[in-house]
Amino acid sequence: MTDMLPLVVVHGGAGHVPKERSENSAMGVCSATQAAYRILQDGGSSMDAVVEAVTRLENNPFFNAGCGSVLNVKGDVEMDAIVMDGRTLASGAVSAVRNIANPVQLARLVMDKTSHACLTAEGASQFARSMGVVEVPQESLITEYARMRWRNNLEPSANPVECQMGKMGTVGAVAVDAEGNVACATSTGGMLNKMEGRVGDTPCIGSGGYADNLSGAVSTTGYGEDIMKVTLARLVLFHMEQGQSAEAASDVSLAYMKSRVGGLGGVVTVDPRGNWAACFSSRQMSWAAAQGGTLHHGLYAGEHFTQNIQEHLLS
Amino acid sequence: MTDMLPLVVVHGGAGHVPKERSENSAMGVCSATQAAYRILQDGGSSMDAVVEAVTRLENNPFFNAGCGSVLNVKGDVEMDAIVMDGRTLASGAVSAVRNIANPVQLARLVMDKTSHACLTAEGASQFARSMGVVEVPQESLITEYARMRWRNNLEPSANPVECQMGKMGTVGAVAVDAEGNVACATSTGGMLNKMEGRVGDTPCIGSGGYADNLSGAVSTTGYGEDIMKVTLARLVLFHMEQGQSAEAASDVSLAYMKSRVGGLGGVVTVDPRGNWAACFSSRQMSWAAAQGGTLHHGLYAGEHFTQNIQEHLLS
Repeated sequence: MTDMLPLVVVHGGAGHVPKERSENSAMGVCSATQAAYRILQDGGSSMDAVVEAVTRLENNPFFNAGCGSVLNVKGDVEMDAIVMDGRTLASGAVSAVRNIANPVQLARLVMDKTSHACLTAEGASQFARSMGVVEVPQESLITEYARMRWRNNLEPSANPVECQMGKMGTVGAVAVDAEGNVACATSTGGMLNKMEGRVGDTPCIGSGGYADNLSGAVSTTGYGEDIMKVTLARLVLFHMEQGQSAEAASDVSLAYMKSRVGGLGGVVTVDPRGNWAACFSSRQMSWAAAQGGTLHHGLYAGEHFTQNIQEHLLS
Repeated sequence: MTDMLPLVVVHGGAGHVPKERSENSAMGVCSATQAAYRILQDGGSSMDAVVEAVTRLENNPFFNAGCGSVLNVKGDVEMDAIVMDGRTLASGAVSAVRNIANPVQLARLVMDKTSHACLTAEGASQFARSMGVVEVPQESLITEYARMRWRNNLEPSANPVECQMGKMGTVGAVAVDAEGNVACATSTGGMLNKMEGRVGDTPCIGSGGYADNLSGAVSTTGYGEDIMKVTLARLVLFHMEQGQSAEAASDVSLAYMKSRVGGLGGVVTVDPRGNWAACFSSRQMSWAAAQGGTLHHGLYAGEHFTQNIQEHLLS
């Protein structure tokens, strides 16, 4: 029998990945998953693992988080992130934060070093400075691809809906460590050409993520305003509390979001025993999971590749 | 049989009201409730009613919202508010907003006039300006009482826990209109001496409030970081979806918050048929409800006064 614990499941966002970017997206998610898995194998906590996975995706310009974030209507980068610890139900989040390379790490500092659960905008920046977090020039977070999409979307002929569809969403991870503690982390640049100060689902506990050692952990991605309408992460866990599996609870919650408010998205979900799911109602979601020495990954519906983790490292 | 619809239930915050302020607090909540009830009796929507109730409490200096808000650690006022419409699950929120007399009305504009669900800090202010919302000097929102408490809490001898206990929380309202549509609204100055940019439960959908025509509506108050840990508003409605009454679901959710994370607070809850509850685990919560021509109100546990609404207006 395969060892169920530890494990980590990572997503690189629900949506539509342009073909020329899909290979980089798949590689990035697999690589982040393996880095997080190594931490778990070395006895690290689920919180350490999810922060590591999300940090790697923030640093990877192919994802809409950290470097590579989409731009708001003014051409600026404002980012949201959250972490939650299933042992204590404590969480930390930042919203509309600027000039920070790794918002997920700042979110963790909010959880660990303050009595608050969320800091926003300039207040979050002040806190970062007080913690010695280095601020980075905005230019270092903006890719040529992000700037091109922003410009295209300002053209009179732009189709904003199509532009949004083309985005890759939020990144996130859930994990269970050897002690059975669950955690989640989610980070995003938000939606393309959003208003200045727009806060989406990501930093909102229960929408962008939720983690509870008694039921499991979830990180979500998709159209933020629809995710918020159904508090998607908390909804998945309520279904699990009612006895549904991680996969059934994820599918039924995504189906509910689609039927009730017309929203598409995806989730990665774990329970404390090591059952997991990566589900989405969007066209694609790049995802990967590591458990028992095996790497699982996929991008389109129905895709589920597996390989030995050593093999993957060599490939 | 009493007419069940329309009805409105309002709270003026859970916590500990100093004796010299309790009469003003009770009067303010009763008066806001009646103003909202008149709107419902004239055929107004539940959304119109909850925004009216909360606007009146924001304008009343005896409550921690709008004018009368507590001050952050720098002595400034930063406010959070949310509204949610049970017909569509649409919501609007503002966080850490400054110089706005009625954050609840700005939250409603976010819902009605943007494609977003939350705007924060300077972005929320820019949106306010674009909507023609008049900005007010910060001094007009600060009462002598708020400044005194802020100063006291900076004294070396201050007991921060005691200071927080002395606060009256967040204000909020839930309503059902004649068509059976439910809505909620919540508004707050947050917690005394909070860090700049701290965002609490209030603007966080599912924590500070939630409204769904299929189950009911909830507005919460109490220690925000604990409310967020259990997504209190959504939790109450999950219990109602499982068949519990508004009152039982409110009580079991507050008991859960207390046992799981040691948090105290209160909720006002309605279901679409007109059943309602005003429950709290804190020492006090000023609340009032109007239904079938009768005004209900109370402050301490077990208190439940009723009177004819005409009589109350004359008294």
